[in-house]
Amino acid sequence: MPELRKDPVTGRWVIIATERAKRPAQYSRIEEERKGGFCPFCPGNERSTPPEVLSYRPSTTGKDTEGWWLRTVPNKFPALTTEDALQRSGDGMYDRITGYGAHEVLIESPNHDHTFADLPDEQVQEIIWAMRDRCVDLRKDPRMKYILIFKNWGREAGASLEHPHCQIIAMPIVPKRVQEELAGSQRYYDYKERCVFCDMISQESKDNTRIVMENDSFLSFMPFASRFPFETWVMPKEHSCFFHDIQKNQVVELARIFKGTFVQLKDALDDPSYNFVIHSTPYDDTGNVPYYHWHIEIIPKLTKVAGFEWGSGFYINPTPPEEAAKFLREVASQPKDQVDPEIAAKVYGIH
Amino acid sequence: MPELRKDPVTGRWVIIATERAKRPAQYSRIEEERKGGFCPFCPGNERSTPPEVLSYRPSTTGKDTEGWWLRTVPNKFPALTTEDALQRSGDGMYDRITGYGAHEVLIESPNHDHTFADLPDEQVQEIIWAMRDRCVDLRKDPRMKYILIFKNWGREAGASLEHPHCQIIAMPIVPKRVQEELAGSQRYYDYKERCVFCDMISQESKDNTRIVMENDSFLSFMPFASRFPFETWVMPKEHSCFFHDIQKNQVVELARIFKGTFVQLKDALDDPSYNFVIHSTPYDDTGNVPYYHWHIEIIPKLTKVAGFEWGSGFYINPTPPEEAAKFLREVASQPKDQVDPEIAAKVYGIH
Repeated sequence: MPELRKDPVTGRWVIIATERAKRPAQYSRIEEERKGGFCPFCPGNERSTPPEVLSYRPSTTGKDTEGWWLRTVPNKFPALTTEDALQRSGDGMYDRITGYGAHEVLIESPNHDHTFADLPDEQVQEIIWAMRDRCVDLRKDPRMKYILIFKNWGREAGASLEHPHCQIIAMPIVPKRVQEELAGSQRYYDYKERCVFCDMISQESKDNTRIVMENDSFLSFMPFASRFPFETWVMPKEHSCFFHDIQKNQVVELARIFKGTFVQLKDALDDPSYNFVIHSTPYDDTGNVPYYHWHIEIIPKLTKVAGFEWGSGFYINPTPPEEAAKFLREVASQPKDQVDPEIAAKVYGIH
Repeated sequence: MPELRKDPVTGRWVIIATERAKRPAQYSRIEEERKGGFCPFCPGNERSTPPEVLSYRPSTTGKDTEGWWLRTVPNKFPALTTEDALQRSGDGMYDRITGYGAHEVLIESPNHDHTFADLPDEQVQEIIWAMRDRCVDLRKDPRMKYILIFKNWGREAGASLEHPHCQIIAMPIVPKRVQEELAGSQRYYDYKERCVFCDMISQESKDNTRIVMENDSFLSFMPFASRFPFETWVMPKEHSCFFHDIQKNQVVELARIFKGTFVQLKDALDDPSYNFVIHSTPYDDTGNVPYYHWHIEIIPKLTKVAGFEWGSGFYINPTPPEEAAKFLREVASQPKDQVDPEIAAKVYGIH
């Protein structure tokens, strides 16, 4: 059984995932073998995944059969499960919780070869709706303190299956980074009586040097203190603490900017590996949280300089976000060979 | 000029390293070209690095000439420099500091092909002495708030030059992870009036399931809440807050256990890429800090599942530390093909 263990120094919870240990594809040398092989996420192979928990499909088709255009299934090798009850226990000075939770796979489309950048806007909207539907459903279990939605795309980003999919993990704790953001944004609010994310949106709009795209409801920009080259955040312009409260009109606009951002990243960086993760307010806060603002963080995997960052929490980013954003905008507006050579030189290594 | 920028939400400082942006080797596609090429760290090429700041060499040889057995030089592409004065400034809601600091390379031996596991114990002692000497020297500048010593070994760990070397960064801030450890260990101390690291040592010795090696002064073990498979910490058994206060006898023992741990990792995991980082108390605390305990964190780079961890601070570790430690001990004590097949199967993917 998987379990959660707490680092006694920092308080960070880690999943020790014994179920996943049996999964050879997790180790890089095996990854080659998967290419071109059997895909459990393709239409016709519905029986090779656990039974679906959500699908968008014509009402004439049955569960776990072909015909769907979006499908969510439990992960076959879950990091967390609901098999055992949620129990906390000690082991001398150490603390653990049974690995209670849910781990699902959101299959983004029946097409094995699409990328986010290729999908019709409407399909991206469907993906956003499915994310939201799963949040609403999973939060019914009060033991789930947080739902993390993320995507690993490409080998460098840790994807173990090619067929495009996101992952959803519902867990009994709030992840450390989100805790830090909550604490930091609360400190800012206590001092300024304003949301730090709202302030970022207004300063980014004014500075206009780090913006990737913008529409009525959303801003896509590279943060001032980007940890990674081309790190990009997508954020609703109006204050909103919960992702799952997204309005129908906003879904249309989010799909457009989300896809547009990926089109730009794909064009400029030659379809890079990436991760994205959605940060929302933990959902035992049921009211409106004035200090925290949901957003999406996109991290292209361009550098191997991931060295000591793991051990220090200290990042060295070789590409200033202003230059990265300028490069993306130039690529978007003109053919590649006409991009300002000085800027292109700085990011050439990436191509 | 490089600069430090503060994330307004979490307070994390990031180096935006414009100097390094020009360095093509940072991007992975270029890495191939370096293999077998000119090595600026090999004997005879002393003039291709900036002038040395420390070397261990016969007194008959001159600075920046052959004959040394250990050499420390400024990084040619520094993440931080002392060119500009340390200055703090605002940019609307954002904060920055000039990229004041030092960034040095510790060339571990004249031999281009050695690994830590191959070096004589005496050379590992020399490396430890050089790390300590540079700490003592760099701390003379009161603007340097922290000295981070780390190593990237192998492509997967972000090493950009083959010749074995460590890096030393002296910086005007305390890295986030160290801050978290300081805060967490202080909380523990306030509650228990004991050092959390000392307690870990005593529990690890009692449990005896996660220990890799042990000698009179040091313990090498895999932490209870390991974030990564085969993550290993090396820690002095007696309370000590500053790495640079290490005793001469301890240097001998640290060299032995440090090298021994790398021999085991190399044997068991086929010379994996890894990072290590030394965590010590920030050195504006000049007295004895009762709650923090210096230690070394070694992280082999075995999995690509580095996916959403970046964005969430939430780790999924597929190999329980007890199994990893057992595997290492078995490999150390017998030929590989006699290792318990069940345990071997769990880590086979790694080989």
